[in-house]
Amino acid sequence: MAAPDGAAQPASEGRDDEIVTAAVLIIGDEILSGRTKDKNIGFIADYLTAIGIDLREARIVPDIEAEIVDAVRALSRRYTYVFTCGGIGPTHDDITADAIAAAFEVEIGHDPRAVAILEAYFAERGIESNEARLRMARIPAGADLIENRVSRAPGFRIGNVHVMAGVPSIMQAMMDAVAPTLKTGRKMLSETVPTTLPEGTVAGALGRIQAAHPDTIIGSYPYFDGTRHATNLVIRARDAALLATVADEVRAMVAALAPAT
Amino acid sequence: MAAPDGAAQPASEGRDDEIVTAAVLIIGDEILSGRTKDKNIGFIADYLTAIGIDLREARIVPDIEAEIVDAVRALSRRYTYVFTCGGIGPTHDDITADAIAAAFEVEIGHDPRAVAILEAYFAERGIESNEARLRMARIPAGADLIENRVSRAPGFRIGNVHVMAGVPSIMQAMMDAVAPTLKTGRKMLSETVPTTLPEGTVAGALGRIQAAHPDTIIGSYPYFDGTRHATNLVIRARDAALLATVADEVRAMVAALAPAT
Repeated sequence: MAAPDGAAQPASEGRDDEIVTAAVLIIGDEILSGRTKDKNIGFIADYLTAIGIDLREARIVPDIEAEIVDAVRALSRRYTYVFTCGGIGPTHDDITADAIAAAFEVEIGHDPRAVAILEAYFAERGIESNEARLRMARIPAGADLIENRVSRAPGFRIGNVHVMAGVPSIMQAMMDAVAPTLKTGRKMLSETVPTTLPEGTVAGALGRIQAAHPDTIIGSYPYFDGTRHATNLVIRARDAALLATVADEVRAMVAALAPAT
Repeated sequence: MAAPDGAAQPASEGRDDEIVTAAVLIIGDEILSGRTKDKNIGFIADYLTAIGIDLREARIVPDIEAEIVDAVRALSRRYTYVFTCGGIGPTHDDITADAIAAAFEVEIGHDPRAVAILEAYFAERGIESNEARLRMARIPAGADLIENRVSRAPGFRIGNVHVMAGVPSIMQAMMDAVAPTLKTGRKMLSETVPTTLPEGTVAGALGRIQAAHPDTIIGSYPYFDGTRHATNLVIRARDAALLATVADEVRAMVAALAPAT
């Protein structure tokens, strides 16, 4: 269990060859209606990549308990970690904590640690303590709290599922609180080779380089820069020497295919 | 089947009380690594909401055939429509067409309609026609083509699954081509009541308004505007008169709770 102040636990040491995986679950009708544009998946993707955890899947589901339960169960079985965002505020549509308790088949009630954090905050700020606000202290039995340095109402961790706020600034503070508790794997490194050659010109040679180096993941990402289509070729590998070798091959391939200037 | 030029088919007329649902499936390692930030989910969410289709779920999966197959099958069973984005270009990591063929257990090969579109485009633009580029003409058997007014290589529809490009400008053009073929339901309408009251202050009264009007969906969306936390209260209903009534109740509630100025 976390200390009452929600302090992070020491992380397990990741073995250097271990691959640690994760999924993100965004909970909220407002994302699916288009009213709010999600910014959390991209942030968490960057964050996890930086600390050596592979984000393998993301889902967005509505504020419906059965949907949240199904998604949490499916994702928590498959990946080392699950990170949820959204649905832990004080209003009637904030049902994430109840859904997580249902997914883990545990009781849920007002957690004394969370009540203490909230009551102290309310007293300090002259905020009325009411039934709705204290809903934010409802935490599934057996969960650790996740500290919220922005607005105090904590997130929580139960099993391999980390339950965080949907407001990006609060979610980001919670990720910082969670990160030291995570085991991390061998980092995926990447190198980008930009080219103004279209994908169709490099595709054949690029596919041959990928086939020759199965321990790398080579991606081709076309984009339109406003006047023409161009491509970023991204080589990913966990081994720095292999990455450098393959990136050199890709650069040489691009140079050989580029029209003489 | 679509006409060879990919022209849209006339849509089924939606019954006025019908609810049409959809899911989005984003396919691409680059989104999960954080390298590219998804812009397609938000666009499609707005688009579908505007035409009376409820987006119920979104998923992001990597460029792994089994993952794509599983997600396509799960989503196509549950929702009226599925829209996929990504993985239909000419490079080795573009495996969406093969995965969709596997999901529907149909053959895949070079589609003569798609080959004709591409060869005409290549001839017109002086682009070399090669094996990699012609990969973009590989279409599952029985699929209709989806027109691509930006760069020609078509998307396709098979069953209730619409397979579109990942580059936003191309995906958006494909959505425009697809939209006239979709049956649409009764539009979800919404009204937003902004307040600088914190969520915890309005939560109790808001929950009572929601409980009194089960045919509405009332959401509370807190945000931080840089200096303080504020809240948008969003009322959604398919009936305009009901929406107006409930929005008035929410406005009155907010006014009653706001400190006198």
